[in-house]
Amino acid sequence: MATTASSPTTATDPAASSAAAATSAPSGRRDAEASKAAIIRAARYLLARHAHGDITLKAVAERAGVSSPLILKYFGNKDALFSHVMSFEADADAFFDAPVADLGAHMVRHLLTGQAERGADPILRIVFAPLHGEQGDILRANFRTQVAHRLSERLAGPDAGLRAELAVGMLIGLGVMYGIARGPCVRSTEIDEITDRYAPAVQALLTPR
Amino acid sequence: MATTASSPTTATDPAASSAAAATSAPSGRRDAEASKAAIIRAARYLLARHAHGDITLKAVAERAGVSSPLILKYFGNKDALFSHVMSFEADADAFFDAPVADLGAHMVRHLLTGQAERGADPILRIVFAPLHGEQGDILRANFRTQVAHRLSERLAGPDAGLRAELAVGMLIGLGVMYGIARGPCVRSTEIDEITDRYAPAVQALLTPR
Repeated sequence: MATTASSPTTATDPAASSAAAATSAPSGRRDAEASKAAIIRAARYLLARHAHGDITLKAVAERAGVSSPLILKYFGNKDALFSHVMSFEADADAFFDAPVADLGAHMVRHLLTGQAERGADPILRIVFAPLHGEQGDILRANFRTQVAHRLSERLAGPDAGLRAELAVGMLIGLGVMYGIARGPCVRSTEIDEITDRYAPAVQALLTPR
Repeated sequence: MATTASSPTTATDPAASSAAAATSAPSGRRDAEASKAAIIRAARYLLARHAHGDITLKAVAERAGVSSPLILKYFGNKDALFSHVMSFEADADAFFDAPVADLGAHMVRHLLTGQAERGADPILRIVFAPLHGEQGDILRANFRTQVAHRLSERLAGPDAGLRAELAVGMLIGLGVMYGIARGPCVRSTEIDEITDRYAPAVQALLTPR
């Protein structure tokens, strides 16, 4: 659970993700953090494409370029690994790490930087909930508690819960447009410019005038 | 292709969708439009949960409560059915059916009404592109042409392509929050109120001051 800082996220770009599989150096030659990150990235990649029950530990290990026993060593078992991947907690700290007055711009920039630099997004994996049956409900519950509700607790004024959900919705949509729909304009525009255009709408929900 | 008007969309609510399976009346007792709509709804439900190649015509027929031959009669073959479901064209007409000056509010209201009344959304299924390999690329290409680009062509002023992608991103995010994350505040708030809060941000991208 100490993988927060370098934790990659939903890898929506197959090209970016297959890099993990390509670097199949023996685990002993990587440091532990890099291996954990590769395992998490592989699990997220597979969870965006296959039902929870259809994913084997072996498939995660192969994609991550590590051995199955190494996954067990770091995460205990497959369910524990997936619980980790289905939690937003590790990503939420950095995502929400700004004063409320600047949080809209911070979240937009943080999300776009992760997408652009690592094919990663702190919250996008909620969209794959329908794939996972009951596990999808766990993902939804985590999302509400760790993302939407956590944000709402920082907001002053009426309807904080609704405003937080709408703001988070805008951010998910930006992640979908960048990482899944792969909008050519969004992907070829400077992060600062998109932040200038998109963040005011997010901020207006956080701190309405 | 004549199913536009009653065309349901990505059924993200299992409860809503299983209604289709429950109504397994023989196709002869339904009118053709209702059967076609049930087939499309079933195909969309399955495409949100399984890779394209893993979905059989039989599974679609069972979920829709119709026979496989009826699907062949209406759509020709499985690929043609999936091509139809992977197109946004049938939904885009109603989604974009408002003057640009009112389009933000129209799209938000249209999307929320579909979600609330039919568990349906005109554009949300783009989020399942990663599930479908090469077919996902077709979905992305359709989305760009039939949704983002089509919207951008109606916008005046600079950066219409970028503004259209960002506006569409906001709308996808709202659909994710309602239909997939199932945000309790969004789902329990009147559509008019959400429209009042959310549409101005969409409209500001369409018609910047």
